[in-house]
Amino acid sequence: MPPIAAPPLTVDQDRAIAALRGGSRFVLAGHVKPDGDCLGAQAALARVLAALGKEVWIYNPDPPEPQFEYLSREVRFRAWNGDTLPAHDWTILLDISELSRCGPLEPALRAASSRKMVIDHHIHEGPVWWDESFVDVRAAATGLLVRRIARALGVELDRGAALGVFTSLVTDTGWFKYSNTDAETLATAAELVALGLEPAKLYGSIFQRQTAEMPHALSRSLARMQYHAGRRLAVVDLPRAGAGESDLVDSDLLLDILRSVEAVEVVLFLRETKDGVCKLSARSKTAFDVQKLAKRFGGGGHAKAAGATLLGTLADVRERLVAAALEDLAAFDAASTPAVPVRARAEGGR
Amino acid sequence: MPPIAAPPLTVDQDRAIAALRGGSRFVLAGHVKPDGDCLGAQAALARVLAALGKEVWIYNPDPPEPQFEYLSREVRFRAWNGDTLPAHDWTILLDISELSRCGPLEPALRAASSRKMVIDHHIHEGPVWWDESFVDVRAAATGLLVRRIARALGVELDRGAALGVFTSLVTDTGWFKYSNTDAETLATAAELVALGLEPAKLYGSIFQRQTAEMPHALSRSLARMQYHAGRRLAVVDLPRAGAGESDLVDSDLLLDILRSVEAVEVVLFLRETKDGVCKLSARSKTAFDVQKLAKRFGGGGHAKAAGATLLGTLADVRERLVAAALEDLAAFDAASTPAVPVRARAEGGR
Repeated sequence: MPPIAAPPLTVDQDRAIAALRGGSRFVLAGHVKPDGDCLGAQAALARVLAALGKEVWIYNPDPPEPQFEYLSREVRFRAWNGDTLPAHDWTILLDISELSRCGPLEPALRAASSRKMVIDHHIHEGPVWWDESFVDVRAAATGLLVRRIARALGVELDRGAALGVFTSLVTDTGWFKYSNTDAETLATAAELVALGLEPAKLYGSIFQRQTAEMPHALSRSLARMQYHAGRRLAVVDLPRAGAGESDLVDSDLLLDILRSVEAVEVVLFLRETKDGVCKLSARSKTAFDVQKLAKRFGGGGHAKAAGATLLGTLADVRERLVAAALEDLAAFDAASTPAVPVRARAEGGR
Repeated sequence: MPPIAAPPLTVDQDRAIAALRGGSRFVLAGHVKPDGDCLGAQAALARVLAALGKEVWIYNPDPPEPQFEYLSREVRFRAWNGDTLPAHDWTILLDISELSRCGPLEPALRAASSRKMVIDHHIHEGPVWWDESFVDVRAAATGLLVRRIARALGVELDRGAALGVFTSLVTDTGWFKYSNTDAETLATAAELVALGLEPAKLYGSIFQRQTAEMPHALSRSLARMQYHAGRRLAVVDLPRAGAGESDLVDSDLLLDILRSVEAVEVVLFLRETKDGVCKLSARSKTAFDVQKLAKRFGGGGHAKAAGATLLGTLADVRERLVAAALEDLAAFDAASTPAVPVRARAEGGR
């Protein structure tokens, strides 16, 4: 087994490491409704910097979801409530590259005289506005970048840091299922398990937290599933109906189930959240780009996972959405090499 | 990253390696309805031995399931149909330690003058009957033992061998979710991905093969779910009803969904397969032993996953089964230290 195949540091990344070494007070900031990668990367970086004797505060616009309770026992996640930020010399954005993603926290961060650093694995659009950055868009998770940073700083991961990196890895790779799962991801997970983490317990903590109402709500949602385009497209539209019905179903679980149908290439899950407001979650198993589809309705995301908020009645929104998806599928087929049969393309994209 | 933490070879294992090196013609045999670990270990060992110039034949009582088609493209799996086995000097059992597990293939193997080797990670009950063995009951999968064997033999894994080991790992650890997932498992997976395997594609090949009928069938099954014992026990009973209804639902998927409910500790899935015949699949998330429950009805398995075939009408079988499960749960609670609240026990077992 060769050592973990992390790429050598770039000049920018070397500068970021020097900045981390030189600073003494850090605010780590994340995005609205921080996800597992954001929180995990924050937890890990907080522990790594603390190990070097730095002062660190984690601030997010929202508190962590209960599924990340085990991380909250290791580090303190502050949900910003309008109070004054502590004096600090570096603000570090994790898992985002724009202050605007910090929502209500943005003005306070902007007003702070601190220098700004971005640690992220997303593609940044627009000009570089930060002072330093540690970015690699090929990395499976921001937490993996924090693992590289710890190594560059010569800091061993303690339990809290290990839990942070592991959380980042498993939430951003769908528990090692998605195509971003690479050798570095798995080798890092191996290292974290060797440090004492128990994958089965963490799987339970993060993913086996469904409510007792979920199975019947999921049953009702699945009953509404309809196929289009010869079963390549699966659509579930969930009316507001029973108050909170749409909250009872775990979107990721429903999307995973529909994606597991061999013939299905694209899944659209549409929930009516308020009168006249519908939320879309879209997933692709192939090279079909659901981000493009979401963008047509003012949304965004990644090629394989995207979302949007659409205004209108559920029936109306559903009709527009399916029509757009069918158009995009036709364009996708036309753009594909005619010599490659549909079947082969579907297999290649899985 | 330290090298993969595989334990050093035992004296028995060293002897098995010498036997593999010394032999020239091998029959690799597996169990009835060979699963991913059995097939993966066979494929990997076949390629490793072939790389040393040995002659190898894989024989099983049954052909591989279609989900392992990608392995069948790398090696030839022979389903024994009563023909004469080729002359060979070693019969190697993989993922089992008893010839009786080979079903109809047993007499032919027993009649062969070959010496016998067992490569397995299960606990063997009864006397040692084989000539050589490579056994480690702490290994996550038999395929992981083949990886150790390849290393001891100094053979690099080719694509077929890598696919075999990976198949073993992911099928026996529930895609790295079960408690047997250790550092060696993940480090080996990292190594295989570094060799060029694509986890997302393999996940699709193995697990995203559901029929288009599955979502609605799953919906109907979930609608029948009922809780007992304050939601600690979830029971689905599926009548024969629509011909083949019970074949439309993937048991593992249904069981996974119900296990993901936080309050649920035990899941029982009961299917009427013929008039008067019901099949039980039972799963436990805690220290509650479903094998004991299954044994009460003539079945067996492991503490966390067991099954049985019960005779009677669905309603009758369901009633007996739930009564037995409630009895066992009460005994389980009584046996637990009174100082440990139920809540803490449930968390510890996740």
